[in-house]
Amino acid sequence: CRLGARKMEDYGRFLVLLASTLLVGFVSVILSLVWVFHYREGLSWDGGVGMFNWHPVLAITGFIFMQGIAIIVYRLPWTWKCSKLLMKFIHAGLNTIAMILAIVSMVAVFENHNAGNIPNMYSLHSWIGLTALIFYSLQLVLGFAVFLLPFAPVYLRAVLMPIHVYSGLTIFATVIATALMGITEKLLFSLTNPAYSESPPEATLVNCLGLLLVIFGSLILWMASRPHWKRPLEENTKVLQPIGGTPEGTEVESTMTNRSNADKSDLRINTDAARKQNLKFDEAGQRSTM
Amino acid sequence: CRLGARKMEDYGRFLVLLASTLLVGFVSVILSLVWVFHYREGLSWDGGVGMFNWHPVLAITGFIFMQGIAIIVYRLPWTWKCSKLLMKFIHAGLNTIAMILAIVSMVAVFENHNAGNIPNMYSLHSWIGLTALIFYSLQLVLGFAVFLLPFAPVYLRAVLMPIHVYSGLTIFATVIATALMGITEKLLFSLTNPAYSESPPEATLVNCLGLLLVIFGSLILWMASRPHWKRPLEENTKVLQPIGGTPEGTEVESTMTNRSNADKSDLRINTDAARKQNLKFDEAGQRSTM
Repeated sequence: CRLGARKMEDYGRFLVLLASTLLVGFVSVILSLVWVFHYREGLSWDGGVGMFNWHPVLAITGFIFMQGIAIIVYRLPWTWKCSKLLMKFIHAGLNTIAMILAIVSMVAVFENHNAGNIPNMYSLHSWIGLTALIFYSLQLVLGFAVFLLPFAPVYLRAVLMPIHVYSGLTIFATVIATALMGITEKLLFSLTNPAYSESPPEATLVNCLGLLLVIFGSLILWMASRPHWKRPLEENTKVLQPIGGTPEGTEVESTMTNRSNADKSDLRINTDAARKQNLKFDEAGQRSTM
Repeated sequence: CRLGARKMEDYGRFLVLLASTLLVGFVSVILSLVWVFHYREGLSWDGGVGMFNWHPVLAITGFIFMQGIAIIVYRLPWTWKCSKLLMKFIHAGLNTIAMILAIVSMVAVFENHNAGNIPNMYSLHSWIGLTALIFYSLQLVLGFAVFLLPFAPVYLRAVLMPIHVYSGLTIFATVIATALMGITEKLLFSLTNPAYSESPPEATLVNCLGLLLVIFGSLILWMASRPHWKRPLEENTKVLQPIGGTPEGTEVESTMTNRSNADKSDLRINTDAARKQNLKFDEAGQRSTM
């Protein structure tokens, strides 16, 4: 049937995009390693420049690559048979690892600065980077408390879900912007003879790294914001249950998910009461917003 | 009735957010002027540093502030009684002015660089900034050809609308990231005694400007991505017409718009054929995706 063929085609398109995204992210991590090992002093943990170098490597690996994967983990079609709770743990777990790597990457800079008597926290890069890390940690704690622990009522989850999605994507974009500032700073500081303005190979390589980070971010945001690539509803009947009757550990699923599944639409509008309730949820808690 | 009260409350919330956004944008423009007039050499068009200074001022005024307003122009509730075509002209017009200001801001840098024998296009800031301008211009030309000129068939508009929205928001975010890189570069170049790392007042002021740009961008993206703040459908019947029968100059309106308007839902699912058509449009052309 045509519908099935379209779905397969769509699935193929998703896989191509996912593979491209992983490739771009992977190459970014590799380029950050080439940068610090081939052009700089490599990695060490002694307060020297080799310590500073953990900063770009861990920020790109953890705060960008791993955060990106954490964002789209619900989109992977082969995980749709896994329980939602398991996927939430994977989402939260990846974000936790990303947060730890981001913290370590910042500790590396502070230690390096302190050892060399370089002032901390004076640049826009540091202001926005630290703010992003604080918001990222808040987002993780709040997300854990509301969506993973079984205490939050369904209406609260419904109200907070679009904010969670928006904050997550905005923080992610901000982290990439921060990396671009960091690259700019580091190239201006460390390229002296020849200078950044003379475009030595290191400058070209790291500029390309910056471009790849923008492409990686754009691909993640595209995959995250296509409503037809979202994880399907767990059970169709869930949205018809009265607010108090939804089982714990599940939040309100979006009724806006626009799969070409006429049955779902029919089910949704079965009763007047259910439709009104759904419209209420749609407004507050629909996930299609980003 | 409760529904009306909710709508009014929602309207009030939108106005507060809009006022905050305009304030943040306005203060950003003022700060850029304070920066170049109080701390730098002011504005001139002579190849000197006063010429360079047009770059941050015009980039922030045009490429960020005006682009941001252009993005949310459909969201202003008091324009919903205006025709969609008029609003499209305003959207396109604001973006055109923004593009011209962005081009002039870049010309200022090239002229300044050439006059001072400074190399062009070596930094990540320049690479990403020029790329963003090229994509922005393409987006404008394509948007004009597809959504304003009366030639594009409805299905093409439906397919391209989510891409147009995604590209627009992604370019906007990229432009802000580029401004942050530019601020970083300029402060490192021009602050020498005291240096950027000694946090002179100019550094603090311009760091705050950078923070405001991030806040401005976040507010615009929030307003643009709330589905319940979108312009209502022009006529409910439009989506029920066969593909060829839609009047020229109108694209497929999203049927995903989740206003608490039960009549609309009822109308939508009036006939089986219409529902199937809508589902098809939903997949390809729904605007709720970002």
